[in-house]
Amino acid sequence: MARDVVAAIRGAGADPRLLSTGPIEGVEGLDALAGDVPVVVDDRSLTAAVDGVVESFEADDARDAVAVLMADLPLATPEAVGRLLDADGDVVLVPGRGGGTNAVVVRVDGFRVDYHGVSLRDHRRTARDLGATVGDVDSFRLSTDVDEPADLVEVLLHGAGAAADWLVDAGFDVAVDDAGGRVRVTRT
Amino acid sequence: MARDVVAAIRGAGADPRLLSTGPIEGVEGLDALAGDVPVVVDDRSLTAAVDGVVESFEADDARDAVAVLMADLPLATPEAVGRLLDADGDVVLVPGRGGGTNAVVVRVDGFRVDYHGVSLRDHRRTARDLGATVGDVDSFRLSTDVDEPADLVEVLLHGAGAAADWLVDAGFDVAVDDAGGRVRVTRT
Repeated sequence: MARDVVAAIRGAGADPRLLSTGPIEGVEGLDALAGDVPVVVDDRSLTAAVDGVVESFEADDARDAVAVLMADLPLATPEAVGRLLDADGDVVLVPGRGGGTNAVVVRVDGFRVDYHGVSLRDHRRTARDLGATVGDVDSFRLSTDVDEPADLVEVLLHGAGAAADWLVDAGFDVAVDDAGGRVRVTRT
Repeated sequence: MARDVVAAIRGAGADPRLLSTGPIEGVEGLDALAGDVPVVVDDRSLTAAVDGVVESFEADDARDAVAVLMADLPLATPEAVGRLLDADGDVVLVPGRGGGTNAVVVRVDGFRVDYHGVSLRDHRRTARDLGATVGDVDSFRLSTDVDEPADLVEVLLHGAGAAADWLVDAGFDVAVDDAGGRVRVTRT
């Protein structure tokens, strides 16, 4: 999934970096990114580690915006990331299902993240408290993160990258339960 | 939810009609639409009833496209519906979660729907078999249908219409489970 997100960011013309809790060399799936993308290793909590990146952006006069995308967005495409980077707002927020924040663009100083609880609502409030304008992006692809087995149906139906390929190679498929007509994921 | 969808369609400059299994007068929630929007009553299955609408469009020389939106899309906005109506393609498909089809635009003769099973995949195949070009719209708002209690979180967080108002009036709210950090819907 991280490879799909990195490819989408690069396809949108931006410079991806990977924030990781540890070195990625030798880690299945991630190893392919070693040497391909700069890796920032930070073993703190997600919130603290992302804030570290946001703070480093504030200190970098050569950059005027930073975008933070979760790595479990395997439906991300260059087009969807392009819409994110082009969206208006001092802070741009993309919701995940259940109140999460799948992506954020920060163009002002002082914004800090908090991924606990209903993070989207907290991020909106934080931005408003700063007097920052808040934009959003209406994207199924960016709002679809993978938390539960049922989410793999979305990857199989709409993915076209490394994650979808991995699922197919591993024998995953979409099946319809004839009784209820519900769609579920199966593995042979 | 149907009122929100009707308002979004109208806000996008199109002419909404409501396809219903029966008269809406006196039906809680829907009664407000009586006299406000033309109602087509058809008590057949969803697939047969929608095909009836698509067929009547083919016979109407004054119209060159018909859009069919499910009525349980309470996050729909005029902007999102506008993107749907502007999307390129002889057939435009908007997925729902789990392989459903939340919206379809038909600009060719001969296309028929089938909402059983993985309808999005079937609709793609039907369009290709016709030699029709297939477009899509990447929209969290249009891809969010309401099937399960957890989906109400999305309405409370992102809705701004009649469905969200109803939920708030009825005492629904979003809560965070402190133990797991998961977001859920509560009712007081």
